[in-house]
Amino acid sequence: MSLKNRSLVTIDDLSNREIEALFSLSDEMSDSINEQYHLCQGKIMASLFFEPSTRTRLSFEAAMNRLGGRVISAVDIGATSLAKGESIADMARVIGNYADVIVIRHPWEGAAKVVADYAGIPVINAGDGSHEHPTQTLCDLYTLKKERQTIRGLKIALCGDLKYGRTVHSLIYALARFGVARIYFRPGSGLEMPPHVLRKLTQDYGGVLYKGPATDLSSLAQVLGDQSVDAIYITPTDSHQLALMPDIQINLDTSEGAIYVTRFQKERSEDKSPGAVSKKDYPKISPGVLKGKEFKRTLVMHPLPRIDELAYEMDADPRSMYFKQAARGIPVRMALIALLLGTREVDIPEGERLPSVQKTDYPVYKRGFGVSCHNPSGNCVSIHETKYIRPEFKIVSFEPLALRCVYCEHETYPKYIASSDWHEGRLETKKYHSADSHLIRKIKPENLIIFDTETEAQTHGFKPSSYASKRNDEQET
Amino acid sequence: MSLKNRSLVTIDDLSNREIEALFSLSDEMSDSINEQYHLCQGKIMASLFFEPSTRTRLSFEAAMNRLGGRVISAVDIGATSLAKGESIADMARVIGNYADVIVIRHPWEGAAKVVADYAGIPVINAGDGSHEHPTQTLCDLYTLKKERQTIRGLKIALCGDLKYGRTVHSLIYALARFGVARIYFRPGSGLEMPPHVLRKLTQDYGGVLYKGPATDLSSLAQVLGDQSVDAIYITPTDSHQLALMPDIQINLDTSEGAIYVTRFQKERSEDKSPGAVSKKDYPKISPGVLKGKEFKRTLVMHPLPRIDELAYEMDADPRSMYFKQAARGIPVRMALIALLLGTREVDIPEGERLPSVQKTDYPVYKRGFGVSCHNPSGNCVSIHETKYIRPEFKIVSFEPLALRCVYCEHETYPKYIASSDWHEGRLETKKYHSADSHLIRKIKPENLIIFDTETEAQTHGFKPSSYASKRNDEQET
Amino acid sequence: MSLKNRSLVTIDDLSNREIEALFSLSDEMSDSINEQYHLCQGKIMASLFFEPSTRTRLSFEAAMNRLGGRVISAVDIGATSLAKGESIADMARVIGNYADVIVIRHPWEGAAKVVADYAGIPVINAGDGSHEHPTQTLCDLYTLKKERQTIRGLKIALCGDLKYGRTVHSLIYALARFGVARIYFRPGSGLEMPPHVLRKLTQDYGGVLYKGPATDLSSLAQVLGDQSVDAIYITPTDSHQLALMPDIQINLDTSEGAIYVTRFQKERSEDKSPGAVSKKDYPKISPGVLKGKEFKRTLVMHPLPRIDELAYEMDADPRSMYFKQAARGIPVRMALIALLLGTREVDIPEGERLPSVQKTDYPVYKRGFGVSCHNPSGNCVSIHETKYIRPEFKIVSFEPLALRCVYCEHETYPKYIASSDWHEGRLETKKYHSADSHLIRKIKPENLIIFDTETEAQTHGFKPSSYASKRNDEQET
Repeated sequence: MSLKNRSLVTIDDLSNREIEALFSLSDEMSDSINEQYHLCQGKIMASLFFEPSTRTRLSFEAAMNRLGGRVISAVDIGATSLAKGESIADMARVIGNYADVIVIRHPWEGAAKVVADYAGIPVINAGDGSHEHPTQTLCDLYTLKKERQTIRGLKIALCGDLKYGRTVHSLIYALARFGVARIYFRPGSGLEMPPHVLRKLTQDYGGVLYKGPATDLSSLAQVLGDQSVDAIYITPTDSHQLALMPDIQINLDTSEGAIYVTRFQKERSEDKSPGAVSKKDYPKISPGVLKGKEFKRTLVMHPLPRIDELAYEMDADPRSMYFKQAARGIPVRMALIALLLGTREVDIPEGERLPSVQKTDYPVYKRGFGVSCHNPSGNCVSIHETKYIRPEFKIVSFEPLALRCVYCEHETYPKYIASSDWHEGRLETKKYHSADSHLIRKIKPENLIIFDTETEAQTHGFKPSSYASKRNDEQET
Repeated sequence: MSLKNRSLVTIDDLSNREIEALFSLSDEMSDSINEQYHLCQGKIMASLFFEPSTRTRLSFEAAMNRLGGRVISAVDIGATSLAKGESIADMARVIGNYADVIVIRHPWEGAAKVVADYAGIPVINAGDGSHEHPTQTLCDLYTLKKERQTIRGLKIALCGDLKYGRTVHSLIYALARFGVARIYFRPGSGLEMPPHVLRKLTQDYGGVLYKGPATDLSSLAQVLGDQSVDAIYITPTDSHQLALMPDIQINLDTSEGAIYVTRFQKERSEDKSPGAVSKKDYPKISPGVLKGKEFKRTLVMHPLPRIDELAYEMDADPRSMYFKQAARGIPVRMALIALLLGTREVDIPEGERLPSVQKTDYPVYKRGFGVSCHNPSGNCVSIHETKYIRPEFKIVSFEPLALRCVYCEHETYPKYIASSDWHEGRLETKKYHSADSHLIRKIKPENLIIFDTETEAQTHGFKPSSYASKRNDEQET
Repeated sequence: MSLKNRSLVTIDDLSNREIEALFSLSDEMSDSINEQYHLCQGKIMASLFFEPSTRTRLSFEAAMNRLGGRVISAVDIGATSLAKGESIADMARVIGNYADVIVIRHPWEGAAKVVADYAGIPVINAGDGSHEHPTQTLCDLYTLKKERQTIRGLKIALCGDLKYGRTVHSLIYALARFGVARIYFRPGSGLEMPPHVLRKLTQDYGGVLYKGPATDLSSLAQVLGDQSVDAIYITPTDSHQLALMPDIQINLDTSEGAIYVTRFQKERSEDKSPGAVSKKDYPKISPGVLKGKEFKRTLVMHPLPRIDELAYEMDADPRSMYFKQAARGIPVRMALIALLLGTREVDIPEGERLPSVQKTDYPVYKRGFGVSCHNPSGNCVSIHETKYIRPEFKIVSFEPLALRCVYCEHETYPKYIASSDWHEGRLETKKYHSADSHLIRKIKPENLIIFDTETEAQTHGFKPSSYASKRNDEQET
């Protein structure tokens, strides 16, 4: 089965079976890493990094070179084409004519999707703002698989910056899909998992949220009973203290596990004032913290680079996986590139070709006016590239009304609705209503019109219903 | 016939027949783009970009990689070697020992010529200030050729920034040489074609200038009569209005045509104050502007990146050529590199090997003192690299005296002249005269000495003739 | 004999015989430079430049490409990983998993050693602060060898910035080891050879220092008697005058010679105030300066880039070697890379395999507390990377006590000593003493404890001996 010409923008672009087949190919690459240098001969990868990055970029470039392909790269492009005012779409179309595959990192959430929409060649997302970083997730999953044979049933703690850490977001969706038993959240203070990620976990993947007792990481044993933690995944900051509790805890399935910690993403924090995030609450992993028996076999994972959240004393500890995670990035990325370029195929039995990602089939809203993405950091690509991108959403909830941006996946809660049906020819019925009106149940999804503000609604020729202003439109219609 | 070891600094470095042969090879490259990856095996291209650029650089690097060659690249070098004070000539000599071909972009006009003078290997100019960008011109011509079969007799409108847009300057010379019928100029206000380009067009290539009636682009039909426009070439800015007239119009030959618009080169404008260029006069191309029957088959061309001068609504229009122009940059650059490296040869019949560029044979002035290039932006390489470059000019006119800098091709109009013959042994005759004196006819070109200022003349031991000060030297000599 | 998996951090990492064998291979590379493009096929070089550099980086990258290997490169990384707080050791471990060989340039002295300690693959130092630049030295030596057949017995003048010029430091050690007869120092004012370099020359390699008479370079003949100078090695600055004397002069062996001048390293000068270094004293090489008969055959060498210390008039002079030095960087680096990757071996007869570098066997001090490197510029890697690097020294002198940092090789002169033997179980004897006390002769090296300050000593539980405070501890113990 061929993955040729597919793109990897979010981790959900690959089914579980495809990921497993990719891992088999990664094993093969790993075993003969120096013998692949003809596999992608004559192919070109464009490496486009709009944010500084050394490790991820060099990992992709090394992988392509190991395959015998060539690399053209543009680093820190913020200062070049963007400075001349070129759009992402124009760049994608042009580079799509130069190369055979594009790897893109960009500070705007959803930028990789735009590139994939316009390039006409396979696109790999190497990180788009705080949104996703699916190849890091592939390396993380591959490490779990190699060390624990299966991902199903593991118990995993995610620590640190769960708000801006894009690696954590991609990872949590994948863990849910692969049937991890429990995920413990241990965020730094003010760095909790954002609501749109939690909704996706619960509503799209069927996860169940529990509020756990207040506790610090070293006494996690009390929460766990006699269960052990399979992995801790940690993210960096400057903090030197472990203080708080795992404040949310998710039970997804049954049982086995890894700890994964991610770095506090300084550059993506909206509030950059010194007091914005309390560093003293940031978890820190050291041999001392992991001396309990529940951590005896716990894998310590980190996407790197680390700052202070992971002690150098851990480096010699056999539980530490972070350098292995980085090393495994090469065979995993080699496998991925070869698959998307079609120079290798995956072996998936006929009967198993259905993706195990049964994505919830939400109605799509794409009128392109009246409502725009309310990404809290303002970093959604649809907010920046308005000349050619029209806002587009999935309606993930009607009561209350909630829209998920198809680019950045952040949620927007618009205040007003109307119907395209009601007013045809009858101007007096061209009215808008509060979004929490019961009328939302009466308007057919294909007729629904949504507005952020009354001004927007009025600009488009709608008048307020009495409920819209008085919060009482029941009688009026 | 081999082009091995030739350089491409200006579009005039290739004859018409050579350009046509290069296009045949481009066709061949285009047809088998994935099968050329052994053609330049073992060869190295140095890609030296002293100005930010993503598209042009990646286009060259992709072309070299498609040919199986290797690339070493230095981007935004302003911050490195130049910061350490290294001269362009030193850099050229050193890199000339590392690589087999150099691609250079530099903000100084004439810099590519200096690199070609010192490197000892083929050099390709990828843009030198506002001077030339010959490979962009090759892509433009190739597109015209592919879409209209011939360039001879076309009618082409050039719109936007005709002053700083280097792509336009290279293009206009080539169009003239290939016998385009008419070129319509539609500059943004304050962005008119500079005088030294007009002189080259008329004096070197025999073009005839007409002043057309004041009109905006959409009523160009009135100017044209029932003639159609073959192409519009447009350049970017932020303006949203079309207002002015095509203020100059050139009749070069007979009849058939394209519109080409270039970007307003913000970074090269001498006056960077907001009011310096009136953006409201900047032409903007949209489907609405091109609805007249004279534009029915008009090719819309743009060197990219665009800002606001080219509406996104044009993208789906079959007349739009700009993404094709970019795509064709790969086979064209592949052909060029293979020719200059000598791994391919062109097939030009014996009898046709004379270049059709019959460059006017102007006298050369290179005493190296007394007069220097007066490039209005100060960006001529001869003004910056004074330690080893001596000013050198072509005398393009004696009455009035006009010198064309051999580096940037801007014109200088010096005020004073003298003769090396008159004063030999007779100090009382060592005098300088006003350049508009009739004496310029009596001094043999090989004896002519030229000074910018009286101070310069006096520094070199000359005394004013009475005419030099009183504008009356007739009696004196 | 294989050099596979070796690193080149300092020039002393290669024995004289190994250097000579490398030069034989360089000759071979030079003769067939276009036929090596399969030698390192499938291998990857990571080119990591934390400081701006065009020439050195492109030289390495061209060399690897000529060998058919691939390059992944990160330029000016200061702005990326370091900005995210990543340590050099973490970076080395990660990149060590991507590539087969690392080339590193870093502003911190000793950084290349740290990378070599952690990467697990061969590492080549492309310049670490003012410490060393061993591949430049290989190019310099190779040029001397090609032009003079042997290095032994040459007479060489080193001019310009001898303080911060790392190329000069690596070179002088190598010249000493190869038996150069005389090295004349002609530093710019305030840019004298630092004491730790002089100690290494005299104490480790047996050089003898002479103070020469005050003279300027053009009257060097008086100093030389009727001896000729084989080479001048010069370094750049802006100065236009030659004024001072060769203030130190070293006689190492017997007789034959080259002049080598290096650039004043603006960016590494501690004192950046305009008056810090008197530019008027900076030596400048021009044909006029070299008109004496003692310079008749003198090779003029320069590591490039030049500023004003080397006149452009020298370029056409047959004595000028600097562009040849740069050109020879390619075959020399090709040979080095192939050797370290093990794709070529050197041919050293069994009996001659002993390194001729008989490094003095100084005692090592590595308690990791109490004393730290006192590098005057503060640029030692051990001062910056304290989370995982513990200070480590060679005790190069006991009376007076002098420690040579194993990272940057600068010397530290600590003030206090103690013994780990004396105080065992007897608290009243846990005392520290002045470092110039005779007791230093009585403490066994393995028991020696060293402190920078009294505070440090007291922090570790030691009390002052009477001599430590009163400079009189003779009676006390």
